[in-house]
Amino acid sequence: MKNNLVDELKRRLVEIAHLNTASSLLHWDREVNMAPRSIDSRAATTAYLAGLIHNKFIAVDSDGLLKKLKKQLDSNKLKGGDAVIVGETWRSFERERKLPEKFVRKMAEVTSKAQHIWAEARKQNKFSLFKPWLSEIVKLKREEARLVGYSGSPYDALLDVYEPGMTTGNVSEILFGLKDFLVPFIRKIKSSQRAINANIARGSFPLDKQHAFNESIARKIGFDFETGRVDKSAHPFTITMHPQDVRFTTRYRNNDVLYSIGSTIHETGHALYEQGLPAEHFGTPLAESISLGVHESQSRMWENMIGKSKSFWKYFYPKLQKEFPVPFMRISLNDFYNIVNFVKPSLIRTESDEVTYNLHIIIRFELEKAIIEGSLEIKDLPAAWRSKVNEYLGLDVPSDTLGVLQDVHWSGGSIGYFPTYTLGNMYAAQFYSAMSKKIHGLSNKIAKGDFRDIKKWLNKNIHQHGKTYKPNDLLVKVTGEPLNSRYFCDYLENKYKAIYKF
Amino acid sequence: MKNNLVDELKRRLVEIAHLNTASSLLHWDREVNMAPRSIDSRAATTAYLAGLIHNKFIAVDSDGLLKKLKKQLDSNKLKGGDAVIVGETWRSFERERKLPEKFVRKMAEVTSKAQHIWAEARKQNKFSLFKPWLSEIVKLKREEARLVGYSGSPYDALLDVYEPGMTTGNVSEILFGLKDFLVPFIRKIKSSQRAINANIARGSFPLDKQHAFNESIARKIGFDFETGRVDKSAHPFTITMHPQDVRFTTRYRNNDVLYSIGSTIHETGHALYEQGLPAEHFGTPLAESISLGVHESQSRMWENMIGKSKSFWKYFYPKLQKEFPVPFMRISLNDFYNIVNFVKPSLIRTESDEVTYNLHIIIRFELEKAIIEGSLEIKDLPAAWRSKVNEYLGLDVPSDTLGVLQDVHWSGGSIGYFPTYTLGNMYAAQFYSAMSKKIHGLSNKIAKGDFRDIKKWLNKNIHQHGKTYKPNDLLVKVTGEPLNSRYFCDYLENKYKAIYKF
Repeated sequence: MKNNLVDELKRRLVEIAHLNTASSLLHWDREVNMAPRSIDSRAATTAYLAGLIHNKFIAVDSDGLLKKLKKQLDSNKLKGGDAVIVGETWRSFERERKLPEKFVRKMAEVTSKAQHIWAEARKQNKFSLFKPWLSEIVKLKREEARLVGYSGSPYDALLDVYEPGMTTGNVSEILFGLKDFLVPFIRKIKSSQRAINANIARGSFPLDKQHAFNESIARKIGFDFETGRVDKSAHPFTITMHPQDVRFTTRYRNNDVLYSIGSTIHETGHALYEQGLPAEHFGTPLAESISLGVHESQSRMWENMIGKSKSFWKYFYPKLQKEFPVPFMRISLNDFYNIVNFVKPSLIRTESDEVTYNLHIIIRFELEKAIIEGSLEIKDLPAAWRSKVNEYLGLDVPSDTLGVLQDVHWSGGSIGYFPTYTLGNMYAAQFYSAMSKKIHGLSNKIAKGDFRDIKKWLNKNIHQHGKTYKPNDLLVKVTGEPLNSRYFCDYLENKYKAIYKF
Repeated sequence: MKNNLVDELKRRLVEIAHLNTASSLLHWDREVNMAPRSIDSRAATTAYLAGLIHNKFIAVDSDGLLKKLKKQLDSNKLKGGDAVIVGETWRSFERERKLPEKFVRKMAEVTSKAQHIWAEARKQNKFSLFKPWLSEIVKLKREEARLVGYSGSPYDALLDVYEPGMTTGNVSEILFGLKDFLVPFIRKIKSSQRAINANIARGSFPLDKQHAFNESIARKIGFDFETGRVDKSAHPFTITMHPQDVRFTTRYRNNDVLYSIGSTIHETGHALYEQGLPAEHFGTPLAESISLGVHESQSRMWENMIGKSKSFWKYFYPKLQKEFPVPFMRISLNDFYNIVNFVKPSLIRTESDEVTYNLHIIIRFELEKAIIEGSLEIKDLPAAWRSKVNEYLGLDVPSDTLGVLQDVHWSGGSIGYFPTYTLGNMYAAQFYSAMSKKIHGLSNKIAKGDFRDIKKWLNKNIHQHGKTYKPNDLLVKVTGEPLNSRYFCDYLENKYKAIYKF
């Protein structure tokens, strides 16, 4: 039976989606193309659009349409996709209508400018430049939490946007448990007698050749260049104008081709999710990803579980050697595999291996939670950062550029975002384990460069559903159980015991 | 005295301008970046935005604000910029409110798709592919003329958007007069004994080197890369997101560096106009160009009067020779100057010299006028095209790709646009003559690579005024008289008599 009210809701949502398309393109362009002194005009346009989108979203219910549909949903009159569209739109509406337009515009304008201030502060190694902006953003985020409402920590109200259904308490417990596993695990790796010299993989790699090689990997593992593109930016990201216009960026280092390859595989994982969303539902929750955590599960599965596996490089390493005979002709596949999986605590999150990576997340989670809850002041943040890095990673932070200023997130207003990275790692391991049981001869296929079944499995089990399931419900549906950190820990143990022989 | 109503109008206009910024970026991106199969989703977003912008513009007067201000204007209560803002906004409003939103969206969607159909038809040399789309567009444009209203020809209603104050009658007269001058003039050039071999300037020019050389010219003549950028596209164009975000594109041929240089100087001329508009008035008619004709006067003055002058190449030719020793080291400056100004009727408008160029415009004007007035049917258009090209240019048209399918304009709904190209040539000559009298030692400065006074003069006399003057009023203000074709004819005579020695 056709529901005309749902059709009308969809029509309104699609209009908003067109504005989001424009807004995404303005964002993509700012990071990829825009000239330096266009920044102020771009911030003004972005802020105006943010306010307009907010208003149009609230206006979806100006004649009570959404409330009527919510009643139908509550009395079980909506089924399937209709129920998802109404339920998820209602969830967003409940949050958005509590935020005044003025607040939304202010947030967009401050964060648009703050990202450039942050970049400058990082360049100059001057936290003091960024400090007033971060204070302003934290003030706004606390205001957001207050407006939205929360029962436990104000951090709950921020986390919920990124990972629906997850609370600060859940996350603390999960991360705490993981820390308990990681700290002794990393100690074992450190005390291993196995010496890996990753420096021999350095060299001189022309950027256009790197770019071509990266594109060939993205294409091979399934990115559709007919409906997307790849560019260069300071910070890699994936962005969607429409399921048929998905773009990601990569960054390059002249002396390290593995840097761009890791980044490319990671972003391709995100992009495959976006390209796998059902285009015919554009504008509705049926064509939106579930959560940042599930999104990150896609990028991390491709980047680490697949992209750093022996099978993957059985296929790609000869190609890499052919493209860059120096230095790779003199490095065996085994040694290369060890280099790719070299574990060494690093100051920089985005350069760290998949084992120590999660300690970076734990540090950020603890600090941003403390800031939002008011138990840590912005002025004390750099010192707190140094102290935690020293405690968890055993490293001295020589500068704020390599410390508290390294990540773009806070400058963009993304507080409550970091934990989703670690959740993503855990989801990834659990999904990958389920997928391995379903795809016959998975590693052989990977070793032959045949990634079709993987893409198909991910499309079918995860991507095509849009927001139909909550993260944990999807985990249960696909893997048979809710989030279980055992999968991730087992994955690390199996892999690194073999590499480090402990 | 501060006028609060005007301030409120400005606030509303700036909001619309932000949407136009987004719309321009969607357009720029489509031509420069977008993946092929993203086209349908982009067309939908573009159409939605066109409708939204239209509605918001009409809503400027939803509470009678604009009518109130119009009354103030009519009773001489508004002065200076306020009067321009209200007068010009009213003029656009008078037109826009006659167009239903549905019509505006339909036009945006049809033209967005038709441009890709046209490109395909041109590639395949199949007018039949494009024919139904062109018929639809012509139907829509005639409907637009009917909705807007006109007294003489429906073509008047279309022309007026591009060149305010100009009528079909005026244009016919001007173009007819010009044809009378050009036909015998070209005959004299043809019968000249002077032989110019332009082929010796062909060679093999790597695109990245061409791109770098073109950027260096654009920078030198005044384009500000801090607030703009240059890209590659199939059809060169200039587009403005904001006076502080102006972009243009160039196209390249591997064997002909003069092709991209001409295109770059032309678009830089447009871009300097846009960068010269007063950013503080963003969103209002004070930060908008006067007309397409005046815009074209800027591009053509730079491209031809400056960019094809002996002085210009005295400065740039040694640099070109250094960058591309083959073939230019063996060509003298004098021979090169003759090659740059080689006159030879061509099938393609955008490749034709500045003398025969205007015959291309006359052909298009006559044909599009006949189509809009209903005296020529779409099915007869290719034959009519061939016949006119034969009559005016003495050439046989071997294919529709090299004939009626060569220009993008009609597929984008731009009918009534072509005459502004020739008006631009004439305005350019008249402005250039006035400027020459004001800038002491102009050609010496050009020969030294000093373009600062030119940019300054154009900024001061033309760019900074936005829409303050109508085209003819500006001509009178700057040159002391209304449009006079003598300047253009004199310019051609002086230049080409010297080159062709007749």
